[in-house]
Amino acid sequence: MHIIITGGAGFVGARLARTLLARGELALTGTAATPITSITLVDRVEPPADLAADDRIVSVVGDLNDLLAEAPDQVVTWNTSLVFHLAAAVSGECEADFDLGMRSNFAATHALLEACRQLGTSPTFVFSSSLAVFGGSPEQPLPDVIHDDTLPTPQTSYGIQKFIGEQLVADYTRKGFIRGRSVRLMTVSVRPGKPNGAASSFFSGMIREPLAGVTGACPVPDETPVAVASPARTVEGLIRAAEASDAEWGPRTALNLPSLCITIADMVAALGRVGGAPALALLDRTGDPVIQRIVKGWPGRFETPRAARLGLGSDASFEDVIRDYVRENPDAIKLAVEA
Amino acid sequence: MHIIITGGAGFVGARLARTLLARGELALTGTAATPITSITLVDRVEPPADLAADDRIVSVVGDLNDLLAEAPDQVVTWNTSLVFHLAAAVSGECEADFDLGMRSNFAATHALLEACRQLGTSPTFVFSSSLAVFGGSPEQPLPDVIHDDTLPTPQTSYGIQKFIGEQLVADYTRKGFIRGRSVRLMTVSVRPGKPNGAASSFFSGMIREPLAGVTGACPVPDETPVAVASPARTVEGLIRAAEASDAEWGPRTALNLPSLCITIADMVAALGRVGGAPALALLDRTGDPVIQRIVKGWPGRFETPRAARLGLGSDASFEDVIRDYVRENPDAIKLAVEA
Repeated sequence: MHIIITGGAGFVGARLARTLLARGELALTGTAATPITSITLVDRVEPPADLAADDRIVSVVGDLNDLLAEAPDQVVTWNTSLVFHLAAAVSGECEADFDLGMRSNFAATHALLEACRQLGTSPTFVFSSSLAVFGGSPEQPLPDVIHDDTLPTPQTSYGIQKFIGEQLVADYTRKGFIRGRSVRLMTVSVRPGKPNGAASSFFSGMIREPLAGVTGACPVPDETPVAVASPARTVEGLIRAAEASDAEWGPRTALNLPSLCITIADMVAALGRVGGAPALALLDRTGDPVIQRIVKGWPGRFETPRAARLGLGSDASFEDVIRDYVRENPDAIKLAVEA
Repeated sequence: MHIIITGGAGFVGARLARTLLARGELALTGTAATPITSITLVDRVEPPADLAADDRIVSVVGDLNDLLAEAPDQVVTWNTSLVFHLAAAVSGECEADFDLGMRSNFAATHALLEACRQLGTSPTFVFSSSLAVFGGSPEQPLPDVIHDDTLPTPQTSYGIQKFIGEQLVADYTRKGFIRGRSVRLMTVSVRPGKPNGAASSFFSGMIREPLAGVTGACPVPDETPVAVASPARTVEGLIRAAEASDAEWGPRTALNLPSLCITIADMVAALGRVGGAPALALLDRTGDPVIQRIVKGWPGRFETPRAARLGLGSDASFEDVIRDYVRENPDAIKLAVEA
């Protein structure tokens, strides 16, 4: 089985690739398990060294739109059984640069779907959408709890573009061009590495930076709700989407992945339990009105029975999530903490 | 005030243009009434003779995508205050030819929005969406009643493309590029003239053809629900959308227009009351499985409090709608009926 991961050099993409390689096989959309022979990682940058060294990994480096315009069949090769489409410009970038978002999230998704359609083999297509499709406005506040059939009313260009992607995936699936699975990722924390342009970047930084012994910004108030999922749960959801049979998957509407529905105060408390007073002392609680405005529109409470029926659950606690991060990233921990 | 109507030579577009010309002025988005100086009708075909003869009418004939690619500023001129975007490939066409629908409904809407954005004046943009954004499937049946915040799960490419258009209009509005108003048109009946490629075409033909003394097809069963609105109510809704202030309009989510929520049996009975036994004898009730499958997925019952708050209501009865049609189209009536 040949698999493509767009955004495959990014954090979620690389973790997904490692997980798939470690498994070695996949039971695609309810069929028998088949060995994974190769994975193409498409990204603007080279993949991490461990992946580049694996002879099952093919790296295609470039801009996804350019690559698909020039030679779609060299990105989506004839033998592709499964595509994970994770590549995207992130929320903060799309607010700052409308055209960048339309190109990276709207045009690229459409072009990738067209390339898959041209195969004529109806490959499985897992589209990473986002909780950012949900947003509240003064005229239309978010409901207290997001259900599986809550109407998304995105309040950011990123959310609009992801929601449009879901619609395209649904119709390409209905037409038989692909076998589509749209999953809405929750706020992924704790991400290792550096901050990115996402408005949600601080949800990882506020844990990662203090544990690394440097100041981490937490620019929103204690009571801010957040629907958070660990990297492990996120990758689990993406793989489960690829494995679910059509009957298990059900409607073509995007699936809300499970999340821990907590608050910033809960996250800070968990950081304190793992890193103690030294970690808390490194939290910078200066407010950022721009970030607050964006994040305030995001939902913090979900009920996800559809995901539960697929066997997907949330992390046990955010403290566990932090301890997993500490265990998996020993080089990034400078405070004296026990995993 | 200069106005653009795409699809302006079509039935709804031409009726909208005539209504606007008869009014002579418009109070745009809550501002003071301003004289309508000119209306550009953009369509593949020439407008009806009465409109072509009006010196306030400008006709631009051609494919909307081609026109916008070649000279966007000659379609969307600098002085444009208001755009009604009605042009679309219809539902049956889009099911038969996926690429046609993506081009006519998806790419053209995007290109038109871009042309409006380039003006830099945030023109008002009324987008005609459709009840076809709602659809039921075995995995996800439609709710019994569609509310203002019901999640659309389109089951046709036409419905998907309209729903994507709504999202684009919402984000272009949020960014201040346009002042957008998406309205979901109900099934318009009775349309004069010839059948078109829409799966809903028979909703007019089953009335129009018998009254013209020829056989009219009604290929779905008696109990089929339908949410129907007269041409007059439909045009009223489009104009109200342009006139509503931002505060009156409320959220950027598309507005479900009001409809008479009846059944095919009700429509047949109304035809009988207007046209008598001779009209009923001209109804061909042979079933069409393709049409049935499409129409079965459409909603038939709406509750539209948001439209009511804008002062929009449904027709009084379908019999009244037929009698209006008879009165407005005397040349198309061959049976002995009284309007």
